[in-house]
Amino acid sequence: MSIEAFFSPRAVAVIGASTNPGKLGYAVVQNLVEGGYLADDRKVYPINPGAEEILGLKVYASVQEAPNPIDLAVIVIPVGIVPEALRACGEKGIRSVIIITAGFRESGREGLEREKDILEIAREYKINIVGPNCLGVIDTVTPMNASFSAGSPPSGPMAFMSQSGALGTAILDWAMAGELGLSQFVSLGNKADVDETALLRAWEDDPSSNVILIYTEGLPDGQEFIRVAREVSKKKPIIALKSGITQAGARAVSSHTGSLAGSEQAYQAAFRQAGVIRADSLQDMFDYGLAFGYLPPLKGDRIAIVTNAGGPGILATDALERAGLTLAQLENECVRDLEAFLPDAASAANPVDVLGDARSDRYRKSIERVLADPNVDALLVILTPQANTDIKNVAEVVVDLARGSDIPIIGCWMGEARAKEGSEYLKANNIPNYSFPERAAMVLKAMSTYRSYKNEPLPVFEKLDVNKDQARKAFDKVLADGRFSLGDYESREILEAYGLPYPDAKLATNPEEAADIAAEMGFPIVLKIASPDILHKTDVGGVKVGLSSAADVRDAYDLITYRAQRYAPEARLWGCMVQKMAPSGLEILIGMNRDPQFGPLVTFGLGGIFVEVLKDVSFRVAPFSRREAEQMIYEIRTRALLDGVRGNPPADKEVLIDAILRIGQLVTDFPEITELDINPFIIYEKGQGGMAIDMRLVLNPDKQARS
Amino acid sequence: MSIEAFFSPRAVAVIGASTNPGKLGYAVVQNLVEGGYLADDRKVYPINPGAEEILGLKVYASVQEAPNPIDLAVIVIPVGIVPEALRACGEKGIRSVIIITAGFRESGREGLEREKDILEIAREYKINIVGPNCLGVIDTVTPMNASFSAGSPPSGPMAFMSQSGALGTAILDWAMAGELGLSQFVSLGNKADVDETALLRAWEDDPSSNVILIYTEGLPDGQEFIRVAREVSKKKPIIALKSGITQAGARAVSSHTGSLAGSEQAYQAAFRQAGVIRADSLQDMFDYGLAFGYLPPLKGDRIAIVTNAGGPGILATDALERAGLTLAQLENECVRDLEAFLPDAASAANPVDVLGDARSDRYRKSIERVLADPNVDALLVILTPQANTDIKNVAEVVVDLARGSDIPIIGCWMGEARAKEGSEYLKANNIPNYSFPERAAMVLKAMSTYRSYKNEPLPVFEKLDVNKDQARKAFDKVLADGRFSLGDYESREILEAYGLPYPDAKLATNPEEAADIAAEMGFPIVLKIASPDILHKTDVGGVKVGLSSAADVRDAYDLITYRAQRYAPEARLWGCMVQKMAPSGLEILIGMNRDPQFGPLVTFGLGGIFVEVLKDVSFRVAPFSRREAEQMIYEIRTRALLDGVRGNPPADKEVLIDAILRIGQLVTDFPEITELDINPFIIYEKGQGGMAIDMRLVLNPDKQARS
Repeated sequence: MSIEAFFSPRAVAVIGASTNPGKLGYAVVQNLVEGGYLADDRKVYPINPGAEEILGLKVYASVQEAPNPIDLAVIVIPVGIVPEALRACGEKGIRSVIIITAGFRESGREGLEREKDILEIAREYKINIVGPNCLGVIDTVTPMNASFSAGSPPSGPMAFMSQSGALGTAILDWAMAGELGLSQFVSLGNKADVDETALLRAWEDDPSSNVILIYTEGLPDGQEFIRVAREVSKKKPIIALKSGITQAGARAVSSHTGSLAGSEQAYQAAFRQAGVIRADSLQDMFDYGLAFGYLPPLKGDRIAIVTNAGGPGILATDALERAGLTLAQLENECVRDLEAFLPDAASAANPVDVLGDARSDRYRKSIERVLADPNVDALLVILTPQANTDIKNVAEVVVDLARGSDIPIIGCWMGEARAKEGSEYLKANNIPNYSFPERAAMVLKAMSTYRSYKNEPLPVFEKLDVNKDQARKAFDKVLADGRFSLGDYESREILEAYGLPYPDAKLATNPEEAADIAAEMGFPIVLKIASPDILHKTDVGGVKVGLSSAADVRDAYDLITYRAQRYAPEARLWGCMVQKMAPSGLEILIGMNRDPQFGPLVTFGLGGIFVEVLKDVSFRVAPFSRREAEQMIYEIRTRALLDGVRGNPPADKEVLIDAILRIGQLVTDFPEITELDINPFIIYEKGQGGMAIDMRLVLNPDKQARS
Repeated sequence: MSIEAFFSPRAVAVIGASTNPGKLGYAVVQNLVEGGYLADDRKVYPINPGAEEILGLKVYASVQEAPNPIDLAVIVIPVGIVPEALRACGEKGIRSVIIITAGFRESGREGLEREKDILEIAREYKINIVGPNCLGVIDTVTPMNASFSAGSPPSGPMAFMSQSGALGTAILDWAMAGELGLSQFVSLGNKADVDETALLRAWEDDPSSNVILIYTEGLPDGQEFIRVAREVSKKKPIIALKSGITQAGARAVSSHTGSLAGSEQAYQAAFRQAGVIRADSLQDMFDYGLAFGYLPPLKGDRIAIVTNAGGPGILATDALERAGLTLAQLENECVRDLEAFLPDAASAANPVDVLGDARSDRYRKSIERVLADPNVDALLVILTPQANTDIKNVAEVVVDLARGSDIPIIGCWMGEARAKEGSEYLKANNIPNYSFPERAAMVLKAMSTYRSYKNEPLPVFEKLDVNKDQARKAFDKVLADGRFSLGDYESREILEAYGLPYPDAKLATNPEEAADIAAEMGFPIVLKIASPDILHKTDVGGVKVGLSSAADVRDAYDLITYRAQRYAPEARLWGCMVQKMAPSGLEILIGMNRDPQFGPLVTFGLGGIFVEVLKDVSFRVAPFSRREAEQMIYEIRTRALLDGVRGNPPADKEVLIDAILRIGQLVTDFPEITELDINPFIIYEKGQGGMAIDMRLVLNPDKQARS
């Protein structure tokens, strides 16, 4: 999809251009004209059968009658005649269309049909659509304002896409007040065609955009988003704010957009895998955008503070430490140099307190010296407006020194009445400035996160040696049998096919056979009912553990069989599985469920109370790399148990990682697996491996990919 | 301590008043004069032996020569002559003095001595001091600005105290820009005399202050702070921002103020016990202050949203749910009424989306109807500046309807260039307004927290029936013996004296006796070396568990004794403790350590890996009530284990609560206990009790309170 024409067309048709200043069709023409689009001989063709001229431009009765060529059309007409207009665009050879008109998917069933209709027309003519139900598109570089926004935002390094047009108006309003500088702005509306992923590709190599900001209520093709964002985020930071992450929020999204929200866990995992920085609030998104837009990249986590106020210096220190960053340890030489010119009561150690009576010359000398210290990766300059503080001069010092610096310098001008003249100077000179030290720390944390994401290699998806055919046959057999879940015996076939370790077990069809098998395996023994119709064996008394003699095994066989018959008289009984009881070890859960937007979401956690009480689990969307499987293990709060605590040896993590990878491959290979749980997978100490004790697996034949 | 004179004196002397506008001594006089203090025949007496007149006021050569009476003096002279000036104040009968001059405790050892000297003078003359090393005091009601701030802040409902003068200047600068309205402002400086607790009392019944804001770097008398704040917080909300909560932050505090920081856990517990709302950042403190200052109290957690933008409505919903609040379920009748006048595409369910084309009339009707719904406890009005939004009119509607409403109404005007005219109108009319929906949710969360704090009864400190004498004798014996920690046998005496259950045990002095005792108790048995000199019995092989016969007990006795002699040849051996082995149950930790600022900090948590790996513990400062002990149990993340999971029965929580209370009483009764750990306390199912299996207790004789 080539969507450059949305940002830098040579000629734009406005279908539904209006002479009435109260109408959106007037606002769009006005924005194009007043936004400077007509320079460089670019053309705007207002289309309206009932008008002659709008804002000095000749109006055409139809697209057909307008000159050629036209690169972009903006449609802002009643919903009923949009299809006709779109078709006219297609006939005219226009391949990029912004549909501002509402009344599609967002307005219910009929609207959804209308949206399908226009998509069909678009496909027929190979048209790309932004919208429908959107605010439009703005490019401040061309410049082109093809939207009905109230004015044009100033140029800057942030590319912004928003699923919500209303939020877009707020963003533009902030931008117009000088709070944000935008390179491109796209109101995505219903995302019938152009979506987040397409824009990521469009902005990937755009030299005017240093950072990409996304507000989204849902990413329909999650897998594709991850694939693209993973690559784009290596080139520039992507910041995403996802709404509808709580249950109540998801309900609100669904009633707002009519789409099914993916799970919070899936988004968390997906953004992590894609290297996307997650903003937890709109304020975070803005604050991060400013920093990523204007600052050089952070090269390490050692932060220096220069302040004229002790208290705020401590608040900043607290916030940096809580964010996982480090207070830079200044070189001895640096401390000595600072001490040489700072007053006695000042602090030459980090945070460097230049004292309340400091003027810009003392700030300058201190900042210069701190910037020269190789132990410093970023600098936070804090100012409180004290009696003699020359507030604006200090801001000038920061702007001046930032110019020659390759490390990020952030301002924290606290206060408003007097502080403003400094903070506005910083803003005008593109120095990110935050009113509160804690916000500055959050921003540095985000920069540090991006640094670590960017340094990660692109994932390599290993193809482990598995027997896919064997698994397919097993699934086919189950489905042919009219069942959707696997019995114990069949599960073992899948485990075997995918190289997952499991305890030795054999099917016995009578008590004597069970006792013989048990004697051969060695005690203790577990006996389980073998039936394709009994899913929850424990619930019907179909499992006996810790059997320590042949006599016990025979008794258990009869008891289990009797109970199974009593509880489930219709069930087919194949006999009992005789299984060597696994020695005790650490119980692990490896699971998977299918997220509506991202597909196979694999879960890892410690079993038992850790999962049930603490919900201590980590997630990744499959497919994932070995490195990502390792991260899953690292992310749980109870990971120390795997490292070995209380005299226990470290667990065999290599075997765990391998098991997670094999499950990832299994659920990727077979889309028909809708749910899977290995619980427990018992892991032993390093070198001793582990095994899948019990697996639950549910199939959905409708999802079967026929190869 | 009566400190009204600091806020509404009839006459103020400025010692060190200056004719030089660059000096602080000029700024103070200027602020008094220009801040309106001279109205109502109040007097300012500048004191300076070398001047005649300052700003039209007659200057006196000394305090002695100034007229009588004088209620308040402000000292702003070189540090060396402060004692002399203070003494002169005392002689003159001035009982309230603000010392702005720096160079005391904050400047090192010499300064600390100077601070002690002036405190001594203050005691002699019964003078109360604010400072030294501070910015001064402002009261906007009197009005009186006795500080060197750059101008006077507007009046408002927030009383603010700050340990940091520099932070104070930032706060005042925000206030002067209209962001905050202050009733009183006190820069506490070194807090040589007047501290946070004294100001809480001063503001407790002050009708002009609706909320008290505290910035502190440490509360030296933590117990007293809790006692006072607990009462004051029943009358008005107290919001505290504590800096120096991380290790790096605590180091910065210590180098800044020279005081020892208490632990983060102690502050967390203390603020909770005192009903103080904790602000995690300066921004939080401001945002909360605005809401508590201007809004009626929240009566429930059901929040309604009226918005002209779907996306921001979802963000608000997410944020409310994450904050633990509830989206109000509007009455059917309310929804029907809304549907009757809202456009079809609008949402009449909460969040109520009045759509992007809504003007103030539609906002008004919607807000009026929602406010009339009894299911609504608070309302958040969100506005994005869309094409036809009459931004200021909507603000007027909100101001108008808030006047007649007894539930909190909060604004969220998003944007700046156009949104500003609305947000400034809200600000001017005291409607708390936040730029981001997530901030508004945080504020509502804080109001909800305050509501629950306020509804809690004041704690009742039960005096449980204990044998304090028995414990005292045991401690005395240990200390007389030159030891600082208790042996197993002595620990049992303490447990017995304080009514804590422990397993049956007896001292045996030879193997035969041990075997006889064991046989009488019943097996299995635990045998432990009994020696006052061996603290970590397990480390020297001094414990054998699970002994199941008389022969085993005899063998174990000899083995343990042999090992103890080998590992600690100097140790006195009293024999072995024979203890009935406790049946297994849930392992609990109950501990205590002394916080430098708050005293006895009692810890509760599940033992073993839960404490070691998950740090899953809760804290309270002793003394505490039964209700607070219950809260400790409720606060741990793994509380579900006590409620019973995975087929386990619920634990005997009453016995646990009782044990926590008894430990709280023990460590309150005996300040010489510096550390205490019962680990494990084994708790059984409801009705079956529990017992302290092992206790470690360390004494510090210097802390012994001689009664």
